[in-house]
Amino acid sequence: MVNETQHSCSASSSSRSDGGSSSGSESSKDNSRCSTPVLDADRHERLREKMRRRQDAGDKWFSLEFFPPRTANAAVNLISRRVLQGRRGEVFDHMGAGGPLFIDVTWHPAGDPGSDKETSSMIIAYTAVNYCGLETILHMTCCNQSKDDITGHLQKAKRLGLKNIMALRGDPAGEEWEEEVDGFNYAVDLVKHIRNEFDDYFDICVAGYPKGHPEAESYEADLRHLKEKVYAGADFIITQLFFRPETFLKFMKDCQAIGITCPIIPGIFPIQGYHSLRQLVKLSKLEVPQEIKDVIEPIKDNDAAIRNYGVELAVSMCRELLDSGMVHGLHFYTLNREVATTEVLKRLGIWNEDPRRPLPWAVSAHPKRRVEDVRPIFWASRPKSYIYRTQEWDDFPNGRWGNSSSPAFGELKDYYLFYLKSKSPREELLKMWGEELTSEESVFEVFTCYITGEPNKNGYKVTCMPWNDDPLATETNLLKDQLEKVNRRGILTINSQPNINGKPSTDPIVGWGPSGGYVFQKAYLEFFTSSEIVRALLKVLRKYELRVNYHIVNVKGENITNAPDLQPNAVTWGIFPGREIIQPTVVDPVSFLSWKDEAFALWIEQWAKLYEEESPSRMIIQYIHDNYYLVNLVDNDFPLENCLWQVVEDTFELLD
Amino acid sequence: MVNETQHSCSASSSSRSDGGSSSGSESSKDNSRCSTPVLDADRHERLREKMRRRQDAGDKWFSLEFFPPRTANAAVNLISRRVLQGRRGEVFDHMGAGGPLFIDVTWHPAGDPGSDKETSSMIIAYTAVNYCGLETILHMTCCNQSKDDITGHLQKAKRLGLKNIMALRGDPAGEEWEEEVDGFNYAVDLVKHIRNEFDDYFDICVAGYPKGHPEAESYEADLRHLKEKVYAGADFIITQLFFRPETFLKFMKDCQAIGITCPIIPGIFPIQGYHSLRQLVKLSKLEVPQEIKDVIEPIKDNDAAIRNYGVELAVSMCRELLDSGMVHGLHFYTLNREVATTEVLKRLGIWNEDPRRPLPWAVSAHPKRRVEDVRPIFWASRPKSYIYRTQEWDDFPNGRWGNSSSPAFGELKDYYLFYLKSKSPREELLKMWGEELTSEESVFEVFTCYITGEPNKNGYKVTCMPWNDDPLATETNLLKDQLEKVNRRGILTINSQPNINGKPSTDPIVGWGPSGGYVFQKAYLEFFTSSEIVRALLKVLRKYELRVNYHIVNVKGENITNAPDLQPNAVTWGIFPGREIIQPTVVDPVSFLSWKDEAFALWIEQWAKLYEEESPSRMIIQYIHDNYYLVNLVDNDFPLENCLWQVVEDTFELLD
Repeated sequence: MVNETQHSCSASSSSRSDGGSSSGSESSKDNSRCSTPVLDADRHERLREKMRRRQDAGDKWFSLEFFPPRTANAAVNLISRRVLQGRRGEVFDHMGAGGPLFIDVTWHPAGDPGSDKETSSMIIAYTAVNYCGLETILHMTCCNQSKDDITGHLQKAKRLGLKNIMALRGDPAGEEWEEEVDGFNYAVDLVKHIRNEFDDYFDICVAGYPKGHPEAESYEADLRHLKEKVYAGADFIITQLFFRPETFLKFMKDCQAIGITCPIIPGIFPIQGYHSLRQLVKLSKLEVPQEIKDVIEPIKDNDAAIRNYGVELAVSMCRELLDSGMVHGLHFYTLNREVATTEVLKRLGIWNEDPRRPLPWAVSAHPKRRVEDVRPIFWASRPKSYIYRTQEWDDFPNGRWGNSSSPAFGELKDYYLFYLKSKSPREELLKMWGEELTSEESVFEVFTCYITGEPNKNGYKVTCMPWNDDPLATETNLLKDQLEKVNRRGILTINSQPNINGKPSTDPIVGWGPSGGYVFQKAYLEFFTSSEIVRALLKVLRKYELRVNYHIVNVKGENITNAPDLQPNAVTWGIFPGREIIQPTVVDPVSFLSWKDEAFALWIEQWAKLYEEESPSRMIIQYIHDNYYLVNLVDNDFPLENCLWQVVEDTFELLD
Repeated sequence: MVNETQHSCSASSSSRSDGGSSSGSESSKDNSRCSTPVLDADRHERLREKMRRRQDAGDKWFSLEFFPPRTANAAVNLISRRVLQGRRGEVFDHMGAGGPLFIDVTWHPAGDPGSDKETSSMIIAYTAVNYCGLETILHMTCCNQSKDDITGHLQKAKRLGLKNIMALRGDPAGEEWEEEVDGFNYAVDLVKHIRNEFDDYFDICVAGYPKGHPEAESYEADLRHLKEKVYAGADFIITQLFFRPETFLKFMKDCQAIGITCPIIPGIFPIQGYHSLRQLVKLSKLEVPQEIKDVIEPIKDNDAAIRNYGVELAVSMCRELLDSGMVHGLHFYTLNREVATTEVLKRLGIWNEDPRRPLPWAVSAHPKRRVEDVRPIFWASRPKSYIYRTQEWDDFPNGRWGNSSSPAFGELKDYYLFYLKSKSPREELLKMWGEELTSEESVFEVFTCYITGEPNKNGYKVTCMPWNDDPLATETNLLKDQLEKVNRRGILTINSQPNINGKPSTDPIVGWGPSGGYVFQKAYLEFFTSSEIVRALLKVLRKYELRVNYHIVNVKGENITNAPDLQPNAVTWGIFPGREIIQPTVVDPVSFLSWKDEAFALWIEQWAKLYEEESPSRMIIQYIHDNYYLVNLVDNDFPLENCLWQVVEDTFELLD
C-alpha cells in the first residue's frame, strides 16, 4: 500500500513518540518553535544542496558571472535603480528576475577587491546577496598574497553573509614569478586553506579548463591538478569558456574517468562584439576556431550582426550540451551586459518568465535573514533601505512581527549610502519635480503626475518620487483613479494597497507563495497631508472606529493612533496547502515612528536640497516637512468594499 | 487635536527612534519576537491587575469559593466530565463558563491539603488552574505548622502554576493553644513569610471580618489586625459572610477610615438549606438575624422553599451592595453547589451568558502557558489530556506551531490519572456501547448512534465515546447527516470540523477572539477505518492531490502522508482589527503520531476492557485496534464547498 503514495514514512510504534523521530526532513535542523514554514526550500539550502536538488529533479538552471564595475556610477547601474534619459539600470534586479541559481563576482587584485569601496568585488558581492537577494559566489585569487590577507578577506566575506568562494590562483605578478614555500602557489592551496580555517562554512568552486590550463604541462596534468582541487574540498567546477560543445563533453568524460564526480558547469560566452571577443581570447589564451573566425571577420564592424550570430551560436551549443544529458546547469560570462545572455536564456526556455514570488517582498539572501518572513509595510518601496537599517539585527522576525519589541533601526546615514540615494542627476529630478515651486499646490501637481503617468506642465513624465524609485506598481495601478483624485486635493499618497479577499496565490498581479493557496490583504493607504485635513479626517474617523485603524504623526513625533496596545496589524497574509499561515506584511505602530523619520527626511534630502537655500521652492518643501502629518489607514474589513476612499471623501466633504 | 482621539502617545522626534520608546504598554515587557498578540489582556495580568482593570472599567465581577471534596468520586464531579444516570458533573467547567474573576479552594489541615492526593486542596487548585483554565486562589493556614512545612507548600504551589494565596491563621489545634515564639501565630505572620521568601511572586489575599473576628478583643482591635495584614503585603481582602448589607458597608467605611485602601470583597452566602446554614453559623460563630430565623424556621423541612428564600435574600443584598457604588466584585461561598449561586448571579445580570471564547479551545491558566495559542487539532475533544501530556514543556508554541520540532509528549499513563479517564460506571458504558458485540458492524452502530443522538437497539442513548466525553458539539452538528452516513459504513469518525470562509468572530457557533474579526477553517475529518477502505481511499485521493492533505497511520506507526516536508497545516485561523493573525489549530504530522498512540490505546483501555478477556466482544475491539487505520483529511480549498464528503463517497463507490 505504501507504494501507492508519493511520500511515506514509518514511525516507531512505541507509545512514547518523541515526534521528531519520524521526520527525516532537512528542516528538522531548525529547532525553533517559531521556525519559518519552508515556503521555498531554496532559502534554507546551501548552494551545493540547491544544485543537487535541481539535478535530482531534472531541472535545468543557469548562473551569471559579473565583474566589479570600475566606477561608482557603473556600480549603481549594476545594483541600484535610477532614471537616466529614460534608460534604467539595475542589471542585478533585471537578471535576478530570470531566476539564476547564483551569480558570481570576479576578483581583480589590482582593483582593491577586498576593500569597502563601492566598486570592490567584496562590496558588489555583499550587495548582491543582501540587497538583491541573489545567491552569490565571490571569486578570490591567492597568488602573491599572504595567508593573513587571505584569511582576512575570507573572514570579512563570512561576516558580510557570503557563503560561496570561487578559489583561483590568479595571474602571478611579474614575469619572474616563483613558487613560494608555504605560500599560496596554486588554487589548491587556497581550497585547503579555506577548509582548514573555515571548515565546511563555505561552498567552494574551482575553475576547470576544457582545453587544459594554458600554463599546464599537458591536458592530462591539468586534469590531475583539477582532481587535486576537488579532493582538497571543492564542491563543484565551473569551466573556462570554450567554443565547441564537444570540447566540453570530452573534458567532462575525461574528468569522470579520473574520478572527478562533483558537478561540472560549462562556462558559456555568448559572443557580443568583435573587440570583446578578441580581448577575451587574448586574456584566456584560447584560440577561436576557424569556422567562427570565418563568419565574424566579414561582419566585424556590425555589432548587431555579431551579437545575433553570438546568440545563435550560444543557443545551439547550449542545446547540444543540455541534450547530452550530462549538463544540468549553464554558467554565462555576461560581461555585465544583459541583452545577449537574456536572449540566449529565453530561447533556451530556462529564463524564468514568470518568477513566482515566495513572499510579496524581495527576500534577502543573507544567511542571517533566511527565516525572515515579516516586514512592516512602510518600506515596501524602499526595501534596500529597510535591509540597510536592520542589518545589525541578530535575528529577524518570522511567523509574527511580535509585540512592540522591534530592536533599534539603524541611523539615517543611508542617504549617503551610494546605492540607496536617488542617483538620477539633479537636472532630471528638477524636470520631474519642478524647476520652481510656487505653492503647496505645485507639489500636489507633482504627486498627481506621478500617479497618472501624464507629463507635467513642462512636458516631462514623473517616473519616480523621493519615496518611490519606480513608476507606480501594477497593483497600485488598480487604485489609480482614486489616487489621482485625492493627490490633487493634497492627500499626498506614498504607499497603498487594495484589499484582497482570497485571490489565488498564482494571481499574476497580487499572487505570491506556493501555488494552490489564497492571498489576502487589508486595504492600506499612507499619505502626507496638512494639519487642516488631519483635523477633518479625525472627525470622520470617529464614524469608522473599530473598522479603520490609523496612525497619524508629524515630524516632531506627535502621534495619534487608535491601535490597541500598539500591537502590529497584519495587512497581507496567505493560506497555503499543508502549511502554517504566512503573514509577510504588518503595520507596526512602533516601526512607523522609525519610518516616519526616514519619510520626512526624504522631503529635505531628496527634494528641498535640489533648490538654493532660502529659495521659495525650498521653503515650500521645508514648510510641508515641518507642518504636514504622515498618516496611515488600514481598513480591517477586508471582505467588504474598501472604505478608505469613503473616509477620504467624507473628509473632503467636511472641509467643503 | 490630540484630545480628539481615544488613544495618543508622543514619541521623540530624534532620527534614531528605537521603537520601544513610545510604547508605555504592559505588553512591552514581553520581548519575544514571537510573543502572542494580546488577544485577551486577562492572560497576561496577575489577579490584582485584573481586579484593578475591572474596577477602572466599571465592570462588576464575581468569584466562587469551593472546598476540596472528600472522595475521589466527588472530586471527579467537581472537575471532570462524567455521565451518571443522565446527570453530568463538571462543576468547575459549568461555573467557569459564567466568567468568575477567580475561584478559591479552601484548606483543611486535617485533610492533608498539601499532598498529591486527588482530593487535596493543592491538587484541586492545580487542576482548576491547569485543566479548567480558572484563575485560582489557594487558601493556606499557618498555625501549628513549621516554617519549613509552609515554605514547602508555597514552593509546591509555585511549581504547580498557582499564583495566588489566601493567607489564613486557621483554627489552633486543641484548647491549650499558645503563641509560639518565632512561629506562625497569626495570618500576618504568613503574609510576611510569603513576602520574605517569595517576594512579589504571589498575589496575597487575607480575610476580613465585618463583625470582627470572634476571638478578637474588639471590633476595633480586629480592624487594626486587618490593617497589619494589608501593610505586611496583602493585596486584597475577602470578608467572612454576613447577613445584612449595612454590616459590610459600615465595615468597609471603617476600614477606609483607618487607611486600608486595597479592594475589599464581600463574601456572600446564599442560604441553601436549613442544615448547612446551621452548620456554617456554628463554625463561624455568627448570629443569624431574627428576621431571617423567622422566615426559615417555619419552612425548615422544605429545601426548595429555603433555597428560593436564600436566593431572594442574596439577590437583594447584592443589589444593595452594588448600588452603593463601593462594591465592584462579589465573592460567593458556593458549598460546591451550582444551583443557588448561579441563580443569584443570573438574576444580578453578572453571570456571563455568552462567554466570548478568546481561542477556539479552552486556555489553561498556568503562567507558563499564557503565551500558548497554537495546538494540534487532534486533542480537540480531550483538552485535559493534551495539557497533561505537555505539562513538562518549558515553553509553548505561540504564533506558529513550528516545523517538526515538537518536544516529547508525556507518556500515556494519563489513563490512570483520575480525572482523565472516563468515570462513568462500567454498567453505564456497557448500556451505551453494547453488552455484547457480534461484529465490526455492531461497533459501527455505536458510532452511528452517538452521531444521531438516537437510542441504540436496547433503548439507550450513546452520549459519550472513548474519544469524546461530550455529546456531539454544536459545530459538528452541522455535519450530522454526512457523519451518520459514513459511520454506518465503517468510517468511524472521531473528530471533524466544517470549512469556514470568513464568518464574523462573534458568530455564536464558530466565533472566537475579539469582536470585529473574521474566523476561518479548513474542513477536517478524522476517523478509524479498515485497511480495505484505506486502500480504496488512497486511490481516490490521487484525484485530490494538492487539494487534500492526508495522514494515514496504523497502530504500528506505518504512516502514509502527502504533507510537504512534514510541515504543520493551519486549519483554524482568525483575522482581527489591529492585530496579527491568530492560528490556534494545526494538523501537525509529527504530533499526530503521539496522538495516534493515545487514540488507539483508548479502544483497549476504555472499550475492550469492559468485556471479559477472550470474550468475542473484546476480540472484536482488539481486532479493530490491531488492524484499522487512523486517518485524517484536510481540504485546503476552504473557500470552496468541502470536498471531503465527496472523497468518502468516491471511496464507497469504488468499493461497491
